[in-house]
Amino acid sequence: MEPNRPRILTGHRPTGPRHLGHLVGTLTTWESLQDSYECFFLIADIHVLTTDFQHPQRIESNTLEVLLDWLASGIDPERSTLVLQSAVPEHTQLATLLGMLVSEARLRRNPTYKEQVHNLNLQPSLGLLSYPVLQAADILLYKGQRVPVGEDQLPHIELAREVARRFNQTYRPVFPEPEALLSTTPRLPGTDNRTMHSSYGNTILLRDTPEETTRKVMGMYTDPSRIHPTDPGHIAGNPLFIYLDLFDDHPERVEDFKTRYQAGKVGDVAVKQHLASVINQRLAPIREKRSQLAGKNDDLMELLFQGSSRARKIARETLVEAMDCMGLRLGASQLPPARIIDER
Amino acid sequence: MEPNRPRILTGHRPTGPRHLGHLVGTLTTWESLQDSYECFFLIADIHVLTTDFQHPQRIESNTLEVLLDWLASGIDPERSTLVLQSAVPEHTQLATLLGMLVSEARLRRNPTYKEQVHNLNLQPSLGLLSYPVLQAADILLYKGQRVPVGEDQLPHIELAREVARRFNQTYRPVFPEPEALLSTTPRLPGTDNRTMHSSYGNTILLRDTPEETTRKVMGMYTDPSRIHPTDPGHIAGNPLFIYLDLFDDHPERVEDFKTRYQAGKVGDVAVKQHLASVINQRLAPIREKRSQLAGKNDDLMELLFQGSSRARKIARETLVEAMDCMGLRLGASQLPPARIIDER
Repeated sequence: MEPNRPRILTGHRPTGPRHLGHLVGTLTTWESLQDSYECFFLIADIHVLTTDFQHPQRIESNTLEVLLDWLASGIDPERSTLVLQSAVPEHTQLATLLGMLVSEARLRRNPTYKEQVHNLNLQPSLGLLSYPVLQAADILLYKGQRVPVGEDQLPHIELAREVARRFNQTYRPVFPEPEALLSTTPRLPGTDNRTMHSSYGNTILLRDTPEETTRKVMGMYTDPSRIHPTDPGHIAGNPLFIYLDLFDDHPERVEDFKTRYQAGKVGDVAVKQHLASVINQRLAPIREKRSQLAGKNDDLMELLFQGSSRARKIARETLVEAMDCMGLRLGASQLPPARIIDER
Repeated sequence: MEPNRPRILTGHRPTGPRHLGHLVGTLTTWESLQDSYECFFLIADIHVLTTDFQHPQRIESNTLEVLLDWLASGIDPERSTLVLQSAVPEHTQLATLLGMLVSEARLRRNPTYKEQVHNLNLQPSLGLLSYPVLQAADILLYKGQRVPVGEDQLPHIELAREVARRFNQTYRPVFPEPEALLSTTPRLPGTDNRTMHSSYGNTILLRDTPEETTRKVMGMYTDPSRIHPTDPGHIAGNPLFIYLDLFDDHPERVEDFKTRYQAGKVGDVAVKQHLASVINQRLAPIREKRSQLAGKNDDLMELLFQGSSRARKIARETLVEAMDCMGLRLGASQLPPARIIDER
């Protein structure tokens, strides 16, 4: 690896197989970042527990699904480092230490927290409140310089920057202040035009077959005011055209569809058939790679464990630095060496 | 070690050398518990950071002071296990997981937290709020069955019991609910009759010389209404007699002093001289042992590290159990083995 590439830390919680929203929102960007950045891609399994600790049996299979989808989408374990959060104990260790530098009032003001508290039926846990501190540790442990995020994650990056600054001012400059790499892709709506979310059943998954994909596209929400194919249709906010803009590589073809749609010269069925076809084209190479990897769970795990082991070397160095700063030199001298996982 | 002894977890934060309050409040009890219990004595250095992260340079020397005082007071590393919190990464790992099961509102209602927030000048940190969860992890990691505590710590034990219960109900029975072993010793006032606290300069330290001790005792607060040795004196609430009750092994002698004091037949100076003499007698064997150990920092650290390594074996097993329950089996399979520290 070229040592001079700026370092990126980003990741997903293993909440289930990835869908088109993940593909256009993050995976396509990540794939392209690998040339110019040293990327760490984190499967944040501990974070899953902050909103759901009652379905532990899902986490392992979801981790495998995420990994399959990542690899199929072009995340390259040769160029980038795959990390399983729970396999690198330094994440929670650093988070505990950083928690000393963050006021709890600051965390309760975090908009994501407020929103989740509002949406959840259960009482917010300490884990949920601490979420952004564990996330800050995820980033700072690797001295990540850039973090590709959506707009909703900006407050978390701001907190990571604050924590880094506070640490550096209190002790000595250890952590770079990570900068957000803001995604410019518009958020993809679900097939029913609500927010795309696995639990709504409105996603198209990367692992779906061409037939499933076509079926889902043919059932998509479209302009509700249009009764007949000859009625003039609306483009703005119509998910069919949001999707077409993202998945059809020929803008002039999309423009033609839009013109005819607004003029009542093409039916929704024809647009949907075209959309299904371009989505299936886009997913074809991903599906092929996915089918090559599927079922080889041991090999997949090995990739993830090797990446985690590589990550642990860096993580351990950073943790020792932080512990030394905070007066925990004695304990740091006893931390288990990082090479151990390597030798398995 | 006899395997059938119930397990105890207790400890101190390394905030400075131990004083007479620690000796009568905990160390004497701990010393005697070692026969009937399998004891884990924790130097909780990470906990220090929850109230003071700005003086990291003190933690290491204070850790050595605490260790010296413990060993001098009869804590026996052959019969018991000494643990340095920061040397056993499983403490913070388990604490992070347990934090998923505790509501943050519950932690804000914790009376110790409220009191500390009231007393501190700074904004309470996430670390301070999480304190009892890290303490619960300290106990549960070793499946501690009894926790010797003062009354002020009872809410924390209650929280540890709640967390254990919640975990066991959600997953499977992993943790015994720890029971408090409530100390019956009255709290020793400082030499100025305020709460005994290092920062008030009103402590008699185990490491003080006989001369320093005598000087401090001769300056002790006593009955303020008594002007002349012939005035009848008050016993109740008089620190001289609280100390005498605890440090003079001959109750009949103490009774005689009390009778004469109340009758105006013995002066404060004479009582103080006697008190200084019995305290010095009590401290003599402790001082001797302390002077044998002092300066042998490498040997002391080795004792602490060996204990921590022994502790890590148990801690790691418990953590793996907890991670398996919570869906983190993959990560648990990659945790660094516990034996590593042993082999150094």
